[in-house]
Parts: sequence; C-alpha cells; structure tokens
Amino acid sequence: MRSQALAVDIGGTKIATAVVDAGGTLRGAARRPVPAAADPTGAEEVFGAVRDCVAESLATAGVDPSDLVGVGCGCAGPMRWPEGAVSPLNIPAWREFPLRERLRDLVAGAPVYVHNDGIALAAGEHWAGVGRGVRNLLAVTVSTGVGGGLVLAGQLLHGGWGNAGHIGHVTVAADGPPCPCGGRGCLEVMAAGPHTVRRAQAAGWVPPAGQPADGRTLATSAAAGDQTARRELVRSGAAVGTGLASAANLLDLDAAVVAGGFAQSGPIFWDAMRAGFDRHAGLAFSRRLRILRSADPDRVALWGAAAFVLAPEQYGGWPDQPPPHA
Amino acid sequence: MRSQALAVDIGGTKIATAVVDAGGTLRGAARRPVPAAADPTGAEEVFGAVRDCVAESLATAGVDPSDLVGVGCGCAGPMRWPEGAVSPLNIPAWREFPLRERLRDLVAGAPVYVHNDGIALAAGEHWAGVGRGVRNLLAVTVSTGVGGGLVLAGQLLHGGWGNAGHIGHVTVAADGPPCPCGGRGCLEVMAAGPHTVRRAQAAGWVPPAGQPADGRTLATSAAAGDQTARRELVRSGAAVGTGLASAANLLDLDAAVVAGGFAQSGPIFWDAMRAGFDRHAGLAFSRRLRILRSADPDRVALWGAAAFVLAPEQYGGWPDQPPPHA
Repeated sequence: MRSQALAVDIGGTKIATAVVDAGGTLRGAARRPVPAAADPTGAEEVFGAVRDCVAESLATAGVDPSDLVGVGCGCAGPMRWPEGAVSPLNIPAWREFPLRERLRDLVAGAPVYVHNDGIALAAGEHWAGVGRGVRNLLAVTVSTGVGGGLVLAGQLLHGGWGNAGHIGHVTVAADGPPCPCGGRGCLEVMAAGPHTVRRAQAAGWVPPAGQPADGRTLATSAAAGDQTARRELVRSGAAVGTGLASAANLLDLDAAVVAGGFAQSGPIFWDAMRAGFDRHAGLAFSRRLRILRSADPDRVALWGAAAFVLAPEQYGGWPDQPPPHA
Repeated sequence: MRSQALAVDIGGTKIATAVVDAGGTLRGAARRPVPAAADPTGAEEVFGAVRDCVAESLATAGVDPSDLVGVGCGCAGPMRWPEGAVSPLNIPAWREFPLRERLRDLVAGAPVYVHNDGIALAAGEHWAGVGRGVRNLLAVTVSTGVGGGLVLAGQLLHGGWGNAGHIGHVTVAADGPPCPCGGRGCLEVMAAGPHTVRRAQAAGWVPPAGQPADGRTLATSAAAGDQTARRELVRSGAAVGTGLASAANLLDLDAAVVAGGFAQSGPIFWDAMRAGFDRHAGLAFSRRLRILRSADPDRVALWGAAAFVLAPEQYGGWPDQPPPHA
C-alpha cells in the first residue's frame, strides 16, 4: 500500500514519528526526548534519536521505506526552506543541520518535505483536525514561543521564504518592549510563556515552593487567586486576542485554531484572549471569526507533516528552486 | 477582438472607466466626479454618471458591448461580495446599491465582477504595475482611509467575505484611540489623512490662511518646518511602517506597494514609514521586504478591474455562491 507517509515532528524537547495513511490513521507512533546535546558536536546524537524513532515506527507499523509515498516533517525553526537546513532555537546542537538530506538517507528514494512546525500545525488542523473544511484558517500555537501557519482559499500558504503564518512577530504594541527578533512589542514578547513568567516575577510573583517558574505554575497561581499571576496571564491572553484580530482584519479569515500549552492553561488565559479579540475586531467580517481550541496538537503535528506528502493539491506547491536567501 | 474588458473604478469622489486590452493598454478613458447626491434618492443620479462614463469609453474606443470579455469594477467599500451590493462610506446615496446588477444591464451578457478598491489596486499593481512578477505582494493605500489587497503565491486573495488585505484595521497600538470600525489603535485611525489632521489640529496646528485643513496642507506645513505638523505626519508614517512590518512578519512577503495621496505627500511621511518598518521588522525574512512606490494609481485601479476579467487564472477564483453574510 503506497498511500502512506512517514510523519516526523521535531520540537524543542521531543521527537515523534508515525506512519500515516490517507485517512489520517496513525500507526507505529514513536517518541523520544531530544538528547540534551549542547553543542554542534552533538548533532549526530540528536539525529540518532530521530533515526531510532523512524526505525521504531516503520518496524511497529510493518512498513518498508519503499512502501512510503514520502516523508513529511515539521520542525522547530528557524530553517532554510525548502532545503530543510534547520537551526532550532531550542536544539543548539543543530545549526544549519541538513535535516532534509539526512531524512532522505533513511528512506532512499522517497521525497522528503521539511517545514516549520507552525505551518505543519496549520496543515494538520486543516487536513484532519478541528479546522477541517475551513476555507481560510489561521493556526496559532502559544507556548515557549508564539508561532503559526495559514491555509487561505483552501491552500496551505508557504510564504516567500517558508515563514507564512508566523504570527508571533506581528506588532501588538508599537511602543512595547524589545523582542529578541529585533522588533518591538511583538506578540511573542508580550504573550509567550517565558516572557510572561519573567514579567510576573519582575512584578513580585514567586512560584510556590518546589514548583518551577514556568507558564504552568503561573497559570496555577493565577487560578488560585494570585493577582500578579492573574494580571500577567490576562495581559498575555489579551495580546494573543489582539494578534488574532489583526490577522482577521488583514486576511478576512473564517476560523483560527489555538494550540500550545500556555494557551490551554485554563479559562483565565482563554477569556482574556477572547476579550482582547472582541476589543480589536470591530468589523463584521472579522467579528465572525470562529476561535477554536486545538483538540490534539501532538497528533495534529503528525497529520500536518503527512499532509505535505499525501494531499499535495492542498498542502503542496513547494518551490523547485530555493528562494535567494540572504 | 474579444480580449478586452471594460474597467470601472469608483472612489469616493470620482468615477473612471476605460477599455483595457490583454496587454494593459487603456483606450477611451473617461472620468466624472461622483455627483454630490446626499441621500438614497440620489442613487440613480450617481449611477447616471457611471453610465455616462461607460458610454463615453465604449464610444471613444469604438467598442460594442458584445466585443467585451466582461466588466471589472473596483469600488470603495464596504460592499457585499461577490454580489457587488455596495455601500461606499463616501457615497451616501448608495446603500446596498446593486452595482453589479446595474453594470450587467449596461453590457448585456458579459460577466461582471465588482470588488473592493483595495483588492483592485493589488491586482492592478501585480498584473501591470510596479508589483509585476512579485510572488507575494501587499498593496496599501493611505489617503482618507487605509486599505489594501494581497497577492499571495501569485494568486489574488479574496478572503472569506471579500475583504482580504484590509490592512487599515490591523492593530498597531493595543491601547490606542478608538477606531470608527469599533476596534482600537487600528492603523487607519493612527495614519489616515483626516485622523492625522485632526490630531495635529488638537495639538495646535492651524492651516495657513485660505488653505483647507487636509492632509496635503499638513504635509506642506511639515515640509515648511511646522513642528506639530511634522510630528503628526511622522506618527502617521511610523504607524504605516509598523503595519507593513506586521504584514511582512505574518505573511513572509516579497514586496509592498504603497499608494494614496497622503503616503505620497513627501519624504517626511515616507522616511517615517521606512523607519517604523525597520523598527518592527526584525527577522531576516521580513527585513527583505521591498517597499515600492505606486507609479500611477489611477491607471492601476483600472488595470486591476480589467485583470479580474482578462487574467482569471491569477485574479479569478471568485465563489459561485455568496458566503453566508451576517
């Protein structure tokens, strides 16, 4: 059976793979932590974990590489695209790592597509997730960073250099704080978990004894009534809502799917996001945006990677030539 | 010769028409002011001016309606799309005016496409203007309002309800002033000519004796050294630059074309726009955005209208069924 793809999802902390068929069924799901190899000499150690996952998936599913239509991979960015030379912020061992080439070696002959994880999320939500059937869809993830992807007029949007949908660097406050990207007042610096936690700590919030100072603990504190934690969580949610409104106003979207651990931290964040959206989406065509909760982001990431291969009429259109990167 | 279209451009103050061939040549260009018919009973008077323009264009070009591939029209919004029932803010005599139906009566049998003027601008810049050959293009107009349109992956983007590219309501300042759209801190309320003039007046700017309090006079004052005029003009330009950066970050664009009288008011605005962009576009893929000056917006609007008809493979894709408007 050749209507199946190998799907690979590489985040900052975990590697996941599965064999996916045209109906979206996952078989042979495998998962490894990203080895904590801290310098470029560890690049092969990290790739070894990918290779082990792939081997496990193929063996468990009983699939030979020659049975695959191709390999799709969503990976944390940044990357050179479509070459798939990746430099994930949270995987320091990989800098310009030739992931696409190396995956090709594992499955000789099958085409390999590597894309930013936010774009894989959008493809996955649209192909088989809660965004199925939505003609104009934004997918957003809010966790250690803020990323996303776009399906417009039913087609996955790549962008000139493979970064379409990167909503984390939409400006929400022209005079806001500097963002590590070099901009200022970007959604990511206003809303991502670590930035929000840092602001809460600067304002006096202290995690309960024995708890890490992370987004999950902050949300727990906020839910327990800590006013500083609540205020910063509300600010973060409001910033995401503002960004959604900007995207809806610019793109005349039908729906947005929101994923990511920080966004799923509970009603304080979600209600603030909704209120921020309502405050900034004034026009009838933007107010109609449906804001959906991602149901199963881990599975969606693999669906999206598989969709690159299995549904090219909607998620293909990859350039033959790389764009002239700076 | 059937490879020609009738192009119609209806703004708040003027109506323009021409016959356009597949090479972009305009013949029989005609122009009328929009009659100052202030209430709905004047709807026919306004349409009469359109009819006169169309008749003049066809007569001058020596073209019979049966020689047309179709009619394309860009019109000031808002409108119901693709029905083409228009309610232009600056033409109070038209409220839900069935423009598409009425144009159809003038050229029996030919298909008629009516779209928002910002979207016609984007199509025109991409088809035959300074955006020719650009794969991912934003067109922006800054004058009495701020509008725009998008060509992404080489295809004109319509949006779910026909409003894609409406950059005027992207948020540039989350805590900015209320916008007439119902939002807050939108690009339009921060940057459009009348809003900028109003802020300058509130800060003490007075137009020179005998000059109107409009964007052109404000720009002249700024160029002559008036510090209040300069400050507000710089704020407006910076807001447009911020909006361009947000769009580039979200969409991974190759170029933006900027049109509109206020944006073309001179180097004070343009330099501030450029600086605002540089301040907010930190990532390599957004910094590469080329910011282009529209060369001939009146002609571009007619090109765009004609492109709907003459180049449907790039500017078509109109829905057969209207979306479920609220």
